[in-house]
Order: sequence, then C-alpha cells, then structure tokens
Amino acid sequence: MDPVTDIPGAARPLAAIILAAGKGTRMKSDLHKVLHPLAGKPMIDHLFDSVAELAPARQVVVVGAGREQLEPVAAQRGASVAVQEPQEGTAHAVLQAKADLAGFDGDVLILYGDTPLVSVETMRKMRARLHANDVPITVVLASRPDDPQHYGRILADADGNIVKMVEYRDATAEERAVNLCNSGLMAIRATDLWPLLEAVGNDNAAGEYYLPDIVQIASGQGRRSAVVETDPAEVAGINSRGELAAVEEAWQQARRRQAMVDGVTLIAPATVWFSHDTAIGRDTIVEPNVVFLPGVTIGQGVRIRGFSHLEGATVADGAEIGPYARLRPGADIGPVAKVGNFVEVKKARLAKGAKANHLSYIGDADVGEGANIGAGTITCNYDGYFKYDTKIGAGAFIGSNSALVAPVSIGDGAIVGAGSVVTADVPADALALARGKQEARPGWAARFRAMMAARKSGGSKKI
Amino acid sequence: MDPVTDIPGAARPLAAIILAAGKGTRMKSDLHKVLHPLAGKPMIDHLFDSVAELAPARQVVVVGAGREQLEPVAAQRGASVAVQEPQEGTAHAVLQAKADLAGFDGDVLILYGDTPLVSVETMRKMRARLHANDVPITVVLASRPDDPQHYGRILADADGNIVKMVEYRDATAEERAVNLCNSGLMAIRATDLWPLLEAVGNDNAAGEYYLPDIVQIASGQGRRSAVVETDPAEVAGINSRGELAAVEEAWQQARRRQAMVDGVTLIAPATVWFSHDTAIGRDTIVEPNVVFLPGVTIGQGVRIRGFSHLEGATVADGAEIGPYARLRPGADIGPVAKVGNFVEVKKARLAKGAKANHLSYIGDADVGEGANIGAGTITCNYDGYFKYDTKIGAGAFIGSNSALVAPVSIGDGAIVGAGSVVTADVPADALALARGKQEARPGWAARFRAMMAARKSGGSKKI
Amino acid sequence: MDPVTDIPGAARPLAAIILAAGKGTRMKSDLHKVLHPLAGKPMIDHLFDSVAELAPARQVVVVGAGREQLEPVAAQRGASVAVQEPQEGTAHAVLQAKADLAGFDGDVLILYGDTPLVSVETMRKMRARLHANDVPITVVLASRPDDPQHYGRILADADGNIVKMVEYRDATAEERAVNLCNSGLMAIRATDLWPLLEAVGNDNAAGEYYLPDIVQIASGQGRRSAVVETDPAEVAGINSRGELAAVEEAWQQARRRQAMVDGVTLIAPATVWFSHDTAIGRDTIVEPNVVFLPGVTIGQGVRIRGFSHLEGATVADGAEIGPYARLRPGADIGPVAKVGNFVEVKKARLAKGAKANHLSYIGDADVGEGANIGAGTITCNYDGYFKYDTKIGAGAFIGSNSALVAPVSIGDGAIVGAGSVVTADVPADALALARGKQEARPGWAARFRAMMAARKSGGSKKI
Repeated sequence: MDPVTDIPGAARPLAAIILAAGKGTRMKSDLHKVLHPLAGKPMIDHLFDSVAELAPARQVVVVGAGREQLEPVAAQRGASVAVQEPQEGTAHAVLQAKADLAGFDGDVLILYGDTPLVSVETMRKMRARLHANDVPITVVLASRPDDPQHYGRILADADGNIVKMVEYRDATAEERAVNLCNSGLMAIRATDLWPLLEAVGNDNAAGEYYLPDIVQIASGQGRRSAVVETDPAEVAGINSRGELAAVEEAWQQARRRQAMVDGVTLIAPATVWFSHDTAIGRDTIVEPNVVFLPGVTIGQGVRIRGFSHLEGATVADGAEIGPYARLRPGADIGPVAKVGNFVEVKKARLAKGAKANHLSYIGDADVGEGANIGAGTITCNYDGYFKYDTKIGAGAFIGSNSALVAPVSIGDGAIVGAGSVVTADVPADALALARGKQEARPGWAARFRAMMAARKSGGSKKI
Repeated sequence: MDPVTDIPGAARPLAAIILAAGKGTRMKSDLHKVLHPLAGKPMIDHLFDSVAELAPARQVVVVGAGREQLEPVAAQRGASVAVQEPQEGTAHAVLQAKADLAGFDGDVLILYGDTPLVSVETMRKMRARLHANDVPITVVLASRPDDPQHYGRILADADGNIVKMVEYRDATAEERAVNLCNSGLMAIRATDLWPLLEAVGNDNAAGEYYLPDIVQIASGQGRRSAVVETDPAEVAGINSRGELAAVEEAWQQARRRQAMVDGVTLIAPATVWFSHDTAIGRDTIVEPNVVFLPGVTIGQGVRIRGFSHLEGATVADGAEIGPYARLRPGADIGPVAKVGNFVEVKKARLAKGAKANHLSYIGDADVGEGANIGAGTITCNYDGYFKYDTKIGAGAFIGSNSALVAPVSIGDGAIVGAGSVVTADVPADALALARGKQEARPGWAARFRAMMAARKSGGSKKI
Repeated sequence: MDPVTDIPGAARPLAAIILAAGKGTRMKSDLHKVLHPLAGKPMIDHLFDSVAELAPARQVVVVGAGREQLEPVAAQRGASVAVQEPQEGTAHAVLQAKADLAGFDGDVLILYGDTPLVSVETMRKMRARLHANDVPITVVLASRPDDPQHYGRILADADGNIVKMVEYRDATAEERAVNLCNSGLMAIRATDLWPLLEAVGNDNAAGEYYLPDIVQIASGQGRRSAVVETDPAEVAGINSRGELAAVEEAWQQARRRQAMVDGVTLIAPATVWFSHDTAIGRDTIVEPNVVFLPGVTIGQGVRIRGFSHLEGATVADGAEIGPYARLRPGADIGPVAKVGNFVEVKKARLAKGAKANHLSYIGDADVGEGANIGAGTITCNYDGYFKYDTKIGAGAFIGSNSALVAPVSIGDGAIVGAGSVVTADVPADALALARGKQEARPGWAARFRAMMAARKSGGSKKI
C-alpha cells in the first residue's frame, strides 16, 4: 500500500527530525538514553524502523551530550547528525536541523528519540492530515492519558482544529480539565517550519525556545493547526529506567495478547518475554518463564518448555525445546528435533528428528537427521584462537559424556562409545572408542574410608 | 459423605451431558478446544473428574468438529459420544444426547466442555435444589459477574424461583441492571427435559434452538424453575487462549493462596505454578520460579530452590531440590536427599541422604542411602534401542565427570575415580578407575601459542 | 548524624522491647513466626538491625511458645529474653520485660517481632516526639491504611496530640470514619511505663491486658499522648504466610524502584528478587528472572542474564553472568570475566577476563587472569571427607570435558587437552593429556543396529 497517493501533497517527500539532545540525567547511565533497548531494540531504532516504512528523503538526528554514541547509529541509517549546543529548548533543537535540510521543501515529521513507540500508521495519519483539503499549517499529535496532569493541553474543535494550546502551568482550571494533551510530535511542511521557528522567543521562566509556540505564532498569522489523536501508550516518553520498564511492560502485555490471538498458548503470559521481531507459529505452546531475545523464529506445534532462553534461533514445526534450553544465535533446530535440559546450541543445525536431550554443548556443528547426542556431550570447538566445525552424520549415536574435538566428522550411522574423546574422524557405521580401560582395586575404598575417617577425627584437613 | 441421601429424589440416578460441539474458532488451534489443558489437565477432564465424584449412571459428550479427538477421551471415561451436525444451538445440542439416554429417567446435569471449573459442590447444590420440597422443573446455575454485560439476565424472587430469564439483547434497561446472569448450566429430570427441548423453536435472528428457552416454555406450562448461585470464577467460559490464560491465572492465584494457608512458604507466590494434583507438605519452602507439572507430591520441610521444574516426582521430608533441578516422571527423592543445580532425575530413586548436587543425569537408576554422586556424572542408560538400569550402592562415592554405562552396578561403599567410564560392575568397597594416564609435554603450549598467534595475524582461519 | 542531640532528653539511653510471644498459629509452622525470613533476613533481625543504629542500652525480647528458637537469636544480639506465660495481652507482655529493665530510666521503644519493617527514621521520630518541648507521656505510632477496618482508631488534634484512642469494636460510626489507626508501637520513658502498665485492667471480653489502655489511663492522670504518623507499609503486621508474601512483594517493589532510580536496568522488574543487602552498581543490566539471595555485591556495567541465581557472591565491573549461572557463597568474579550457562561457582575466584562459559563446576578454585575454562569442566574438589583446592594459572586453557582432581595446580599458560582427567600438577606452558587412545571398529555400528533391531522386533528388552 502506498499510504499517501490518495491525498493532496502526496508527491511531497518526507524528512524526519529525531530530537535526541536531552541529557537523560534521570537514566543515570553512560549509555545515551535513546540507545537503551526496548523490546530488545534501542529506542531510536524503533523510530528509524518506523520512519523507514515511509521512505524518507532525509533524516536528521539532533544530538547534544553523547553525540559520539549516536553518530555511528545515525550513519548506519543514512541519517545526518546536527548538534544542539547549548540546549535551549525544543524549538531551538529543531532549528539545528535547518542546515541539514537546506533545499528540502517537503513534509517534516518531528519525533523524539525517547518516544519510540509512535506507530507508522500514526505517522501516516499526521501526514494525511497535513495534506487534507483544509491544509493546516501544523499537525500536532495528541492523546488523552489517564492522568494528564503536567502535560500541555490542547483545546480543539470537533474537526480537530486547534483553538488553543497551553502549557499546564499557564492553563486555567477550566483548561486543565481538558484531557487532550500535546505529545510534542508534529508534522509541518519545511517551508512553513523555519520561519515559524525563527519567530519563537524565549521570554519564559526557563529562558528556552519552545516548539509548541509555533502553533500560537501561526495562529497569529491566521494559519490554522490541527490535531491527530492517538493512544497515550504510543506517545509515552521515557525519562528514567522506571519509565523504560513501564513502557516495556505495556509493550510486552500487548505482544502477549497478540500471540494468544494468533493461536499461541502462553500458559503464564506474564512470564514470557518477547522481542520486537519474535515470530511464533500457531499451536505452539510456551510454558512459564521463557525469554525470546531478538532474532527468533518458531514454527507451528512447537513446545517450548519452561526456563528456556532463545536468541537468534530458528525452530521448525513440531520441535521440542527445553526446559532449560539455551538457543544462541545460529541455532537451527529442525522439524520434530529435540533440545533438552541444560543444553546450549550455538551456530549449529540439528536436522529433522535429531536429539540433544541433556547437559550438552553443541557449537559450530551440523547434526544429521535422527542423530542422537547423548547426555553430557561437548563439541570442543575452540582452541583459544579459532573455532572449528563438528559434523555428525544422520542416524549417528554419540554416547554420553563424549568430547568431540573439532574439526572432526562422525559418519552416518556411526556410534561413539560413552565417555570417548574423539579426535579423529569416525567412518560411517563404525564404532569409535576413546577411553581408558577399567581396573578395580578390591577393598581399596574400605581402606580409604578408614584412613580418612581417622584423619578427620584427628583434625588434619588435607592429605 | 453421601450428598443426596437426605433430600427428596436422592435415589434417582444421574446423567451428565457435556456439550463440546462448538467450533472453538477463536482458539485458532488444531487441538479441540476442550482438550486444551488448564492447571495441567485438559478442560474436559476437569468436568469428568468432578462428575465422577457423583457416580453418574450415564455420560454423554456432544461433539461436532474434531470428534475424532474427543471419542478416545470419552471412551476412556466410559462416556458415549453424540454428534451434533449441523450445529443449531444449545437446545439442539442437548437433544442429540436423547438416543444415548434412552430409558434413563433420572437427573440430567447439562455441562459445557469449555466451562471446566464448576465444582462438585455446585453440582450437588443444583441436584439438591432439583430435589427440594418445592421441586422446580429446571435448576439454572447463575452467578453475579463483575461485568455482566452480554450475559442473559435472570430475574428471581428471594427464594431463588425464576420470574423471568431474558437474553441481553432482548432485555430492558431495567432488566439489564440486574446482575444475576445465566451460566448456561442446568439440572433437570430427563423425563422433563426431552418434551421441553422438542418444544423449543428457532424463530430468532440466528435461527438457532436455545436451551434457556425451556425455562420460559415450562413457565407457560405452569412449571417453575429455580436458580442456584455460584462464584463467577466457577462458570467462566473459555473461548480463546487469552481467556484460557486468564482462567488459569485465577486458578493459580487461588491455589497459591491455599498453599500458604496450608503452611507452605511461597517467597514469590506469583512465580510458582501448580498443577491440579500438586501436593505439598507443611513448612516446605518454595523459592521464586518453580513449576509443578502434574503428578508431584512433596513432603514436609522440603526446600525447593528457584528455577526448578518438577513433573511426576515424589520428594520426601527434608529433601533439598534445586536450584535448576529437573525432576521428571518417576523421580523418587528420599528424606534429606539432595538434588542440586543442573541435575536431571528420571525414573530413579535416591534413597535417604543421597546427593546428586551438580550437572548430572540420573536416569533409570537406584541410588543407595547416603551415596554421593559427583558433579557431571551421567548414567548412560540408552543404547538407541533399549533403556538399562544403573544401581549405585549405599554409601558409594561416584567421582566427578564419570559415565556409568548401564546395565551396571556399583557396590555398597565402592568408589569410582573421577572421570571414569564404568562399563563393568564394581564390587562393594572397591575402587574403580577407568581413565587414561596423564602425560605432560613440557613447553608444548608455549610453542602452540606462538604458532597460532602467527596464523591468526596471518589471517588463516583453520589449521 | 546524631539524631537526638538537638532535642530535649537527647542524653537519655534507649531500651527496645520486642514482643514476640504470639503463637503464630496462622503460619502453620514449626519455625517461630518472627524467624521467617523477609527479603532474605528473619523478621526479627530486621528489627535488631534497625534498633542497632540507635545504639540501644538494653534490648528485651518477650517470648512465649518457641522460646528455645528465639533465645540463641537474642543472645547473638546481646538481648535478654523475658518469658510471658501465660499470654494475657500486650500490656501483660510488656510488663514481663520489667525485671530485665530494672534500674533503666531512659526511653523505651515497644516493637513487635511480626512488624519488622519499621524504619530507623520512624523510630527516631518517635523518640524525638517524646523529647519535644511539650513532652507527651507516650508516643503512639499511627498510620492511615487504605482499608483501616479492624484497627483501633486514634482521634488526634492538628498538632498530633491524642484526643482519644478507641478499639474498633467500641468505636462509634463517626470514630470508625476516622482512618488514623494505631499500629501498636509506642515510645515512652521507662519511669512512666511501669506504673501505667500496672494500672491496666483486664475487664474486657477476652480478659486480656491491652497496651493501648495506658494512653487513656495517662489521660485520666492529666498526661497527654501524641502520635507520630508513618506509611502503612512500615507497620504491616505479618500473621500468615499470605501476609508475609504480601509484605515481601511490597518490599521487593520498593527495592526494584530504587534500583532503577540508582541507574540499574531491570528489563522486567517484577521478575527480579533482591535481598536486604543486595548492592548493584550503575549501568548494570539485569535480564528477566534473576534471584539475588543475601550477600551479593555487583559492580558497574555488569550484565546479569536471565535465570541466574546469586548468593554470597561478588561480581566486578563489566563482568557477564549467565544465563543460568549459579554463583554460590565465595564466588568472586573479576572485571570483564564471564560465567556462562549452567555454570556453578562456589568459593572460587575468577581473575580479570577469565571465562567459564558452559556447563562447569568451579569450586574451591583460583582461576588466573584470562584463563579459559572449557565446557563441561569439573573441579573435583571433594573426596567424601575433605575439600581441596584447584589452582589454574593466568592464561591457562582447560580443554572441554576435563576433570581437575584437586588438590592440583595448572601452571600459567598451560593447556589441558579436552577430556583429560588431571591428577598431577601441570607445569607452566606445558600440554597435559590424560585420556584414552581412540580406536575404531569398522562396521561394528551397522552390525549392532541389525542385531538390536532384531531383538527389538523379537520383543526382548535387555541384552
């Protein structure tokens, strides 16, 4: 769908300005506030990803402190960086993007790095309103929070035309009773934006230049502004780790509800954590206490047992994972395969029906169809310098407590005896044994116990 | 206690009709809705188990889509299956059970497969009301939910006699203000039921035959009906995975409260999941994040540490389990025994005071009193075809990282040296060693490092 | 700060009376109620620790049933124990402390063993009020709970002077509408306390001597009492495991909020459990499902991954712990060191940059800087009688699935081959191998499979 072709101004290109110059003091962090992850993705990347769907012509991130952290992130997204120094208010911040937008006369979306969950749909609505027949000069994103106390209020008519915008501290009791609040986000045409910003003054207690003032200035020029309204959850700003956790929780709750609607059983929804990109098929069952870090795709009819931790992994239909399974990036679990308790899989494929049920580390490996990896098996894939691959053939049987020293290949249908340290390739259908011979010393244990008991009562602590 | 001997009609036998013909579309599942588990037990089994306490003479499950899934379940319970095809409403559904109940003239309880938590006590109350001196023709189970919006309303007098039953859509504002709601469940004598059902029409928007209509029809015949009231939680219907999770959570909360009342410490109740049959003794402490799947019985004074996952296991007084212990079916942990972190126990007995504290797999084993299983011990119980037993004698000491290749027996008081692969029985009081001899190559590591560092800087990736 | 030097009576010494004679029947426990832990510390120790900050001259614990459990606890704190037998009410309980406080004429704080969260600041306020210029004879700690139903009510003037104290059962409707409630805690000078207690009667339904009565008696003598008000959460009494869990949850919520304010990221705050003494540095990230038992100190910039369980452990800056890491008492993890999944560390130091990433048990060990412990490594530190130490040098590399049989020392830069059982010291820079030689039996596995398949189809179950 092309969201803008059926509305006036559709041909106009888009620029996004992301304000990220705040100090983020309340985060108490060396990491820039907008880089803190939400649903497993840095806040600012949520905005970049949403804006990307609108194919922006330009993107400018306005930064202050911590710019060295944001520059590489912006560069990766093809966004330019404008520095606001000192920080003299939101209007002043937006103005810093002017040079980077020289010659641009399309639509400008003004976004906030710490307000990451604004949806693409809402952004589209803002642009559509800006292009509507009555053409407001600015479109302000508003919401009706449950507790609107300190937000600026918007008085609007039934058509969404703004009658007045007023800061909370300046509002009358009657105005404060209005619960339509300014989110700070705006859409405005570039050619309208710059002159209005230049006209903003700083004659206020903080001596700052406030972006919302442009609405009043435009109004004085006989130009009308309009609101687009959205869910308060979309415009929740994040200023502290407590607020970050609260927004995360709200996001998780919505995601869990959606998973259940989509046909996934969550036995205890409140204990399942998703990431922004988790994909799970129908009739998959997720037991209590499962964490999906980014990059996970799960098929249909999978059972993910409790206490499992998945990241960057793919799990095919009918597989069973956990409990206590850790799938790390590159784990590729085939249909009806099983990864059991205390098993770690990293950069390894388990083909259809393969099993690693207990206490194993399977790294840099390719495990063939129906192979059985015994309890306590370790692929020794690292020598301190390089990583090496292990290949286990279809139908192979690896005895428990074996160490497979990579690079090594176990042939199809081969058997490795329990407790073996396999350092050489094993041919198909062969048995490999690599372990010591058993010897027994009759009565030794009885003598040992007598000796140790004497030592213990004698008070000596070591041999 | 015999619940019905002191009331009229007590001698009448009971039939239960369980309606399970709904398509369950909102579940988005290939599994029949009533087979989705709640508290670790399929919904319909909750009903079968409750009804079983009333010793029913007959049971009929009315099925539609997915009958092939329900037939074996019904058969196992001695219930017959009646097919409703097409599905033309609840009255029509009940009527499908008529043939199966031919000749039956006792009480009929009409239950719903997706309303699994109706208690035996409530069923008894419904029957008792049906047998009361004033003998209503139907007894309707009602409740007063917090938000009764879309439910049919019941107007009843102070004695519980129904004045009027009305669907929400047909109710006046005054009737909607009544919060006594119809759950759909009914008790009625078979000889009264069939004629009333035949009289139900389908002259309504959906063209369906509605069961509640029998109340009005009976009223027109001068017969009175009555309500029995119960907690709304008992009659919460489940139509989606979201509703399933909500009912599960309510069940869990009640179960946790009961556990604490019974003298079990739950440090973080919201993180402990019980099953329908979990039994836990007094002064047992459960740390945060413990999952009890079905079949678990825990003694007194047990400590179950965090992140433990128990299923089909028995744990005796004073034992310590976890953290990260997985007890699978057949785990039988003796008094003051210990199962520690990253230890899996399956079909194995640990006698009094035995310990498996770290990173072990104990399957198909019998571990004697006071035996000590070292870290990393694996019982190799499977050869790809059969499972074999391991016997570890009382007071035996299994050195760490040993593999015990079953079938094998370690005698009482025997010691197995660390890292051994034991393939032959070890006599009592003997020492068994089965490992390679240590050799050292002086300076080898230094030369290796020099070589690998050179390769790494040279950019080659493998030997 | 010395809280009392600027107020009248500052020079007066302090005595604390802790009432702990209740039967605690609703706990259903063999453990004395006040010994049940909250935030990882027995309830009564919360009081002892708070009182300790006020440097009390005397402490008396009044006990009834279970005194044998409380006596050693009191002794450890330098508190005397007074026995109340039989138990005839709170005034009677306090009176039992009289003998132990013979000759003491300072301030008395009356505390309750099952009300453990009263803060030191509140205690100071109570004393300060007792020393204020208007010198009330008693200071009663009050709060305004959300649901004050059954608590005694306090009518006080704007200055906090008590006009009337009334039990709920005796209160008029108007008095019940007051939500200022008596917590039971009091501050009073010893010389005032004893005569008032002696004057308390038991002419009431229960035949008990009630402590609050002293306020009315003093009033009759023309002496005024005053209230100090505090948060209801501070004075929540604990009478059942359900109430214990509720107070624990409230404590945890407050602690989590504080952690976030202090610059710790909790991705899912509700799933992180702290203990009373947990210390965590700034910019540390805690994933969902982490349990901090007592004695844990975490540095800055640490990442603690999900499902980790820490107790008595120290973790330095920049380290990475988990997922599924268990740090037991004495674990000392150095800067940027890593402890990975299914790894248990007990009484062991990992120096800077050392790694134990998978499936290992590291106990009684010292691991040098940058050493790498391969997957499945076990330190065999126990022979059934004594524990022994393992030393691993800086830069050493322990191959996977090795067993290090302590006491043993691996030199700096040494390498241990995978699957080795190391029983002798390894010199620096040497390679140690201690494993069997590999042999292959071509075609054996194919023959074995044919034989077993035949047996399986033949129905025999064991060799």
